[in-house]
Parts: sequence; structure tokens; C-alpha cells
Amino acid sequence: MSYLTVIFEPDGKRVRVEAGITILQAAKEAGIIIRSECGGRGVCGKCKVIVKNADAISEISGIERKLLSQREIEEGYRLSCQTRIFKDVVVMIPLESRVETRKMEVHGVERRVEINPIIRKIYVELKEPTLSDVKPDLERLLEAVEERLGIRGVLEFDFNVLRRLPEILRSSKWNVTAILWGNRLIDVEPGDTTNEIFGMAVDIGTSKIVCHLVDLKSGDTLAVGSMENPQILYGEDVISRITYASSSNHNLDSLQKLVVDGINKVFVEVCQKAGVNPDKVYEAVVVGNTAMHHLFLGIQPKYLALSPYTPAVKRSISLMAKNLNINQMNSRGIITTLPLIAGFVGADAVADILATGIHESEGNVLLVDIGTNTEIIVGNREDMICCSCASGPAFEGVHIKDGMKAVTGAIERIRITRNFEVEYETIGGVKPRGLCGSAVIDVVAEMFKHGIIDCHGKFNLSVSIPRLKRTERGFEFVIAWRNETATGREITITQKDIRELQLAKAAIYTGCSILMRKKNLREYDISTLFIAGAFGSYINPENAKIIGLIPDIPTEKIKFVGNTAVMGAKMALISKEVRQTAELLSKLVRYHELAADPDFHSEFINAIPIPNRIIDRFPSVKKYIQSFA
Amino acid sequence: MSYLTVIFEPDGKRVRVEAGITILQAAKEAGIIIRSECGGRGVCGKCKVIVKNADAISEISGIERKLLSQREIEEGYRLSCQTRIFKDVVVMIPLESRVETRKMEVHGVERRVEINPIIRKIYVELKEPTLSDVKPDLERLLEAVEERLGIRGVLEFDFNVLRRLPEILRSSKWNVTAILWGNRLIDVEPGDTTNEIFGMAVDIGTSKIVCHLVDLKSGDTLAVGSMENPQILYGEDVISRITYASSSNHNLDSLQKLVVDGINKVFVEVCQKAGVNPDKVYEAVVVGNTAMHHLFLGIQPKYLALSPYTPAVKRSISLMAKNLNINQMNSRGIITTLPLIAGFVGADAVADILATGIHESEGNVLLVDIGTNTEIIVGNREDMICCSCASGPAFEGVHIKDGMKAVTGAIERIRITRNFEVEYETIGGVKPRGLCGSAVIDVVAEMFKHGIIDCHGKFNLSVSIPRLKRTERGFEFVIAWRNETATGREITITQKDIRELQLAKAAIYTGCSILMRKKNLREYDISTLFIAGAFGSYINPENAKIIGLIPDIPTEKIKFVGNTAVMGAKMALISKEVRQTAELLSKLVRYHELAADPDFHSEFINAIPIPNRIIDRFPSVKKYIQSFA
Repeated sequence: MSYLTVIFEPDGKRVRVEAGITILQAAKEAGIIIRSECGGRGVCGKCKVIVKNADAISEISGIERKLLSQREIEEGYRLSCQTRIFKDVVVMIPLESRVETRKMEVHGVERRVEINPIIRKIYVELKEPTLSDVKPDLERLLEAVEERLGIRGVLEFDFNVLRRLPEILRSSKWNVTAILWGNRLIDVEPGDTTNEIFGMAVDIGTSKIVCHLVDLKSGDTLAVGSMENPQILYGEDVISRITYASSSNHNLDSLQKLVVDGINKVFVEVCQKAGVNPDKVYEAVVVGNTAMHHLFLGIQPKYLALSPYTPAVKRSISLMAKNLNINQMNSRGIITTLPLIAGFVGADAVADILATGIHESEGNVLLVDIGTNTEIIVGNREDMICCSCASGPAFEGVHIKDGMKAVTGAIERIRITRNFEVEYETIGGVKPRGLCGSAVIDVVAEMFKHGIIDCHGKFNLSVSIPRLKRTERGFEFVIAWRNETATGREITITQKDIRELQLAKAAIYTGCSILMRKKNLREYDISTLFIAGAFGSYINPENAKIIGLIPDIPTEKIKFVGNTAVMGAKMALISKEVRQTAELLSKLVRYHELAADPDFHSEFINAIPIPNRIIDRFPSVKKYIQSFA
Repeated sequence: MSYLTVIFEPDGKRVRVEAGITILQAAKEAGIIIRSECGGRGVCGKCKVIVKNADAISEISGIERKLLSQREIEEGYRLSCQTRIFKDVVVMIPLESRVETRKMEVHGVERRVEINPIIRKIYVELKEPTLSDVKPDLERLLEAVEERLGIRGVLEFDFNVLRRLPEILRSSKWNVTAILWGNRLIDVEPGDTTNEIFGMAVDIGTSKIVCHLVDLKSGDTLAVGSMENPQILYGEDVISRITYASSSNHNLDSLQKLVVDGINKVFVEVCQKAGVNPDKVYEAVVVGNTAMHHLFLGIQPKYLALSPYTPAVKRSISLMAKNLNINQMNSRGIITTLPLIAGFVGADAVADILATGIHESEGNVLLVDIGTNTEIIVGNREDMICCSCASGPAFEGVHIKDGMKAVTGAIERIRITRNFEVEYETIGGVKPRGLCGSAVIDVVAEMFKHGIIDCHGKFNLSVSIPRLKRTERGFEFVIAWRNETATGREITITQKDIRELQLAKAAIYTGCSILMRKKNLREYDISTLFIAGAFGSYINPENAKIIGLIPDIPTEKIKFVGNTAVMGAKMALISKEVRQTAELLSKLVRYHELAADPDFHSEFINAIPIPNRIIDRFPSVKKYIQSFA
């Protein structure tokens, strides 16, 4: 057996391998993960590498000719799963073949909640039946559990528990742990398993699914997992998915299966991370906007998109996980969806309120949960009103020329200096590959401050600097030059990109503005502005105000609270009282249909300029710009 | 096309048919049903007929040579599905090829019950949602239904209803019928369907399944159906089925599937009979002894047969029919099993009490529900005690040499005259083929009266009559001579048959006797003796007393009540109050374990002689015999 050396660039990792193995296998041995969705079967074409010395490797195969472009072949691209190594060789792994690690704020803020989960475990040592005590198995168990709880004739039971009960009681010598969901016996385990009692908090976002695995004894989050919502195949936004699902029940089923399979995957991942047996996960509390909620439950969402935008249901729903094919938890486990507020304000908004405590706040609070769909809530413990706006995926980097998600290589912060130089920071500290949402906000705000764009978002062509240049796409502002980037291409922001941002921020500002007016509140009436959503945490609040994304509220009153939706779900998971509050909120929080508001159109038009057509609404920005100029 | 005439004997039915068709087809055209389990595919060999004129029909086929014996072929037997007719012919249909119609008492006695079923239908006309009234679909429906019922926030719902709800509401223009099971919404139908509301009462006996299709508006039974319990494949009695199920979960599943498939078949049959759409059958109330109950629900019955004979559950269970694969009713319909009393006294006994009203009786009542397993209940509204005895299938004609079920051709009544002639009646008035249970009781009682057997059941060989003769099986008494019977063979009762009957009657009498002693009751304390069970109706009560099957209670106090189990199920089906009573009875009725009673053995030994070792317990019999002698 002959051995040879492979060097993987750009990291310079070396590995000694047997001659004849594939580059993909060699990379694995070197601890480098190359993208390979098909598992090395020569189907996905994602495991591209560049090898300059063709003598060292196998000849190009038919599969490679099919999956690589002519130009790639000329440049030395090969598929690592198809290419065998015969001599020492240097393999370049291009950026696009690397597996990314996603940076996301999923922990958010946590409020104090008394731990009182609806799931309980009660260990009982039963008396063995005798001829003078022939009480049936189920009654024997239920009565012992009720005695422990100081209740009588209250407990119900899941029929499937009964079928296995005689065997479990006898094989465990009558010492068992009863698992209760509320007053319902959902499972029985041999012996004392009271220490293993877990739950999942799940946020189904339009863009991503986030899960927290929670220890129901301590309330601690043991592991966090997430993935892109696989429904994204059928459109980035809520409306395109509703449209797809509306056309047939088969389509609805496909969308449901995608999200269910996704959740199953994340469940496996977080349980593995924490070393928890999925059989010991007894409940998942799920939140999401109304469309995500309906699709998850397999309810036709068609009527959410048709006036008068009626959801099928508002209240909280609990059902057996297996009815939804959620199978990576206890087979008799329960899925609970928190209640909704309206057709476009879902269980995620209820969770936002729970997590931030608006319903207990004396002062008036404004909450903006930014996502593909943005929920806005204004109010305090007396009264709350909410709305939803289709802010689109611009903040996720979508529809922006060099936009990308907030993953390694994304520019996340940008500052323009007095002499028009650009300073930026990338996620992971590597060479930049694109712009994530916060950088887009930053660059637009900075350009506006320096007069590179005017209040309509138009490039000011009188500013004569090399970074402002004309291309076939029109004018662009160069953020990173070719030689600075990981891709070898310039990273720029275009006139169209600025327009996308303006539409997105106008939608959100309009929501805030109309709701505040409905409540007769001015900026100074707001004691706290919560900015929620995974994306929110990386926003520069000053810049957000400069572009007019949020109302002009003093920065010290602004709190970035991350994924409050999943935190609210977690609170409901560990506390019965929180669920009651959720049910109450679903009934009490008023919904305002923006599209039906007479001021909507004019407000939206006003909100498109930077920061706003009515500059007096942004006194701090006005002052800052004046001082800056 | 040439036509010819076929005459079917013994009925003499004539039919003109085309030449070349099979005898089976010709019989169908004549309206005669010939047994044919395989549907005429030449597999089952059941469609035997006798044709003497071989010229008129096709030659004997290979299939026929395989399925008929050499002797049958010599006697002119043919398979009617394989034999084509070419000339006028006479076809004899032997008894064994005729389809029998079973005579059974399934109606029983009916008590007055106020109609208040747990299933309700509420028709509502909903307001269509508008932009100013965006109440979700489910809440809109539930609130309208609650308003009609004068309740609020009480109704629950089945998740599966929700999934289809948006479409149903809109396609029906918001006029729908809600189906409630208690306070749970289980289905929604377009339009007003309140007139179609049905349920099933089901008795799963060890030997047979009986169903009543009930109109839940009127409480009327619309159709009755029954079939042999298909589990009989795995043993006639409860213990052999428990033994079979105990050995593996696969066996348990097979037994469950058999009874479920059987119930589905009977459901189809009764719905067809009554012209009722099975989708409009919303609940089935099921009773049966504890073993049948466990097997039906798929609960391992192993521990019912092991001391201390503990059932898995006692209380009433309601679950979705589809969870049990009961699919010939509404797909969201409910199956409810009535509660049990103990390991060998099941929901059928609870139903017996409900149907006969023992729990409301001032006087003391004795109830004997005779079956393969016999339940006995003694008491009144103050206190009831029950037991179970393994009386075996002798009363079903099993283990009796010429025994048969109570179907056409069975002798059901026998009288012996002073000159030792035998008078008998057969079911259907045809030539006899065997003895059903009531005839066995009659003949033993008559033989005892005439001194043909002594009090130990032994033939009195000093009685020299032709009917008492010796065979290779020992002594037998001839009931019907060869020339009188349909089979051409003698119908007799053997010494072994008498012994079987003695064991069966001793088991039942012992149960009655021990329970009466437990309650400190004598025969004259009993105001009514109910004899239940399909078989019961045909018993001659005097003869039952003569053989010592039942205590010596005046005949005018004896009531034959038929299938009280199914009647009790029907009462629970149409009345919520009756269900509450059932639950109470399950808790209040005391169970006495016969096998553990110190007197059991001596009582049983005493009960084997005719009528009893202690003849003074049967004063009326004693007197009668004296007067007769």
C-alpha cells in the first residue's frame, strides 16, 4: 500500500493517505468538511475542488463533465467525490464548497418564570395485586398517582398507555414512573426516571426553524439547534407559500412534510448535542406566524391570504406528536401550539409579548420583531395593539446584489470615514464575501451621513470618489475592492439595493407609526423599544434611526432581545401559568389590519425617503446630520 | 341459444337456463343459495351437489377429483361451480351445502330509557366573516354552537375536524351541522343533517357478535345483525383464546384483527339492511366479557388467567374508532366500551344489570347470563354480588356427540312419553340433524323423570327399551331413528354427553348457590330469576330445575330475557345517564372469586348429581318426581 501527501488550501492542512482514495475521503481524514449534499454519489455537484496538477489524480469522468461547466474544467475544477489521488497533490477548496456555520442570535433575553411545567413525572411503588386486592392495573396506577398528588378521580389517560400497561407494571416489579401531561397520563416508564424530563421550544420562522432543548426540572436550555426552513424551496415569503399550498392539498401536504422533517432533524441534532434520549422529550411548544402555524398543522392557509384574512383557529392546540409525524421525541409526546392573534399575527407575537413582558409593563412599550414578516406590538399592561408588515427578506440579504445571510464571511458592520474610506467587520474575521442585513443598513446610513446619497436614496453624483462608479447596472458604491474579498469580486451596493432597503424599512416604520397613532402615543411616550428577531441583534440602532427604520427613540431605551419567539415558547413550556397568560393575550391583544387603515398609503409614501419625508419626526437624526455636515 | 330445465331437490324448484352454465349459476337464478365460500373458484369444495344423470352434465374435472372423496364421486357428488349443464337435469342439494339461517334471540327485553345520547347534532347558520369580524373559523363555529346550547367556553374539538374546517364552512356557505360527542366537536357536515344520527350497540360474546343499529333520535333499533365470533378459530372458550394471545403480541394482534374485521362486517350488513349511510353512525357502545373486551382493545389478556386474575382496566373507555380500525362508521366516530366489574365479569354483566334493572329492584333478583362463560348476579338496589363460571360450550351444542347450534334442523324441544316414545320439535320444522342445548337439557330431564338415567346421570340398564342401546361408544339413548333424520344417521345422547351437561349445570348452579349463600338468601327470597343469553330463551324452565341447572324457584318468577348484554349496550348508547349508572355499577357491584371460595369444591361436587346431591334443595323436583313415579 503506497502512501502520499495531500495539502488542502487555503488552510494548508496536510494529510497522509493511501493512494487511490478520493479527494472527498482525504478531506474527511484531514478533518475538513467539503459540501456534499448527495453524500458523495456524484449527484449534487457541490464538492468542487481545484487541482492544478492533473497528473496526480484520476482522469476527468463523465459525471464531472456533466456537473462542471467547460470553464470550470479549464480552470482545474474537479468533483472531490469522483477524483482519486495517485501522487502527492495540492487541493484548493473554493469558498462555495465549504460548509458554513451560521451565526444567529437564538438565546435572546430570559425572564424569570416559576418552573411549573404541564409535564410531570411521578414515581410510584405499587402494591402487587393479590386475590384479596384485585384492583385493575390502570386503576391501581392512577389511584397511587392521585394519592401522591392529593387529588381524586381527576386523572385521565391515553389509551395507548393502557395497551402496554400490564407488561410494564409486571416487568418493573410494580415500580414505575407515570408521565402526566396536565391531568392526562400519557406514558409509563419502568423504574424511577423522574430525573429525565425534557421539552422542546420551537420557533418556526418563515426563514428558519429554531429549537431549544429544555430541562423541565431546572428550566435550563441544554442545547440549541436551528436550520433553514426547508419550505423556502417554495418561496421566501409567507404569501408565496400560501399560494403554493392553496393550489392543492398535495402541495399543502408537501409543505407540511418539509417543516415536519426539518423539525425532526433539529430535534435529533439538539438531543445528540445534549446527550439526551429523545424518548425523554415529552412536549414541544411551537410558535410561528399564522401561516407557518397552519402549514405545520396541515391546515389549509388559503383563506389567510384572502380578505377578510380569517385564520382557521386562534386558540392553543395540543395533540399527539405522532399525529403530525414528529417522531424524534417520546412516541406519546404532545405538541402544543401557542394561540394566535390574527391572520397575520401569530403565536410568535404572543411569545414575543410573553418573553418581553409588555403585558406586565406599566410604561408603554414598542416591540418590533423583524423577519421576512415583521410583527409590531405597542402597548402596556392596560392595552396592546399589534399589526404585521410584509417587510420582505431584504434584511436576510435576499434581493440585495451582494447580500448574504449572517454567516462566516458576511460583512456585518460598515463605517465610512471622512475621506470616504470604508471600514468593515466580517463575521468570522475572514475575507468578505458579501453583505448581511445590518451592513446594508449601515452602508445606507453612512452614505446618507456623508452625502453620498440624498434623502431619496439617490446617489449624489456630484460626489466624485473612486468608490462611486458607474457599471452596466447603473451607479454602485464599492464597499470592498476586488483584492480585499474572498471571491475576487468587488462587493458593492447598488441603487436598486438601496431601493429594496427603503421599501423594507418604510413597511416597518409605517407599522410602528400607525400603531403609535392608534394608541395616541408619541416617541417620548415609549419607555422601551424592543428589537427582536435573530437579525435584530446586529443592527446599529443609530443607523437604524438614520435610515428611518424605527421611530426616533433614544438609544438607551432600545433593547435588542434576539429570538423572543422561541423564548416565549420556552416560558410556556416550563410554566402552566404562562400558557394561561398566552391564551388571555390571544384574546386581549387587539389586531389592526394595516392594509385597511386609511392612513396606510400616505404613511408608507412618507416613510420611503431617508429618514422620512417628515424630517421633524426624526429630530435626533436632523440634529446629527446638521452637526455632521 | 338452447334452453333446458333444472329441478333442484329437495325443494323441487325448477328453473329454465341456457345450456352450458354451471349448476351454481343455475341455482342462483332459481333463488337458491348454495354454500360457496370461495365464490365459485373451485377452492373451498363446499358447493357439493348430487346429480344422478351424468349424461346431462360436463365430465368430472381434476379440481373435483381433488376436492371430492372417491366415495362421494361414486355417489354422484359434484362441485356445482365446476359442473356445466347440457341437458334437463335434477340436482339434489345435500344439507351440508345449504346456507343456514341462524335463530337467535337478539332483541331481548327493553326497559324505558329517556333518550339523551352523548352524540348530538347541532345545525348552525354562521355569519360570514368580514374585515370587521375576522373571528377564526373554529371559534366562529364553536361559539355559535355554544350559543345554541346555552354554554360558554366548554366545547373541545377533535384536531382532525380543524384541518378540514375552512373548506367545509366555505363550501357549505357557512351552514353546517356540528356533531358533538359530549362536549367534544368530532365532526362537521355541510348543511342540515340533524335527521341522520345513528349508533351501534355491540355485544362481543365468546361465541358470537351481535350488533343493533340504533336511531339516536328515536332510540329505535333499525336493524340487527350477528355473526359467529371469528376468534373461535383459536378456541371455543375464553381460556384457550387468552392462552393463544399470551404467547406473543402477534397472536394478540391476530385475535384483535379477527374480532375487529367481524364487527366491520356486521356493521356493513346492518347498515345495508336499514339503508343507513355508515358515515352517519357516530358511536358504538361495546360490551363483552373481560377477555373479549381486552382482546377487542388489543390489551394483553394474559394476566386475566393468572392469579390474582387482574384486568388491565375497569372503567369505561372511549376512543376514536379508527384507532381500532373500526372503519365501517364515521371516520371520526367513537368507540365506547362499558366498564367492567372484574377479571371474569365484564361489561356484559354491567349491561345485564342495566337491561334488567336489578340495581333499581326492591326485591332480590338472581340473574344468570348463560354462555360459554356464564355470569351470575344476585342482589337488589341495596347491594349486588356477582361471579363468573366457566360453563363451557355444552349449551351451544359443543362437546355433545350430536350437538349443534340452534340453527335450522336442530332439535330444540324433547318430550319422552310414558311408553318411552320420543317427541321432538326442530328449528324450521325440517328433519332433524342434531340437538341444540335446550334439547340436551330436555332429554336429560325427561330421561331422569322416566328413570332411564339415575340421579348420577348413569343409564339405568334395567330399563329394557330399544332406544337404550349399546354401541362401541358405550350406552346411548336414541332420540331420532336413522329414517327420521336429515343425515340418515341416528341422533342419540351418550353417557359422555350427559356427563358434559352435568359438569356445565353444576358450574352454573354452584355459582348461584354460593352467591345466594353470600347474600344469605334462600330460594323463596328471590323475587325474579332472569335467564339471559341467546340460548336462554329456549330452555324449558321446569326441565332446567329438574336437572338442577338453576335453583328451585317458582316458574312464574322466571323470566327469559334474551341478549340483555346488547340491550344494556343500547341503553348506554342512547342515554348519558345510563352510562353514569354503568360506571357506578362497575364500582359498586361486588365480585366474588368462586375458585377462592372455601365451599366451592363441595358445592360443585354436590351439584353434579341430578338435580343435586342434596335433593331437599329442590323440593318441587322432589315432589314432581314422586308424583311422576
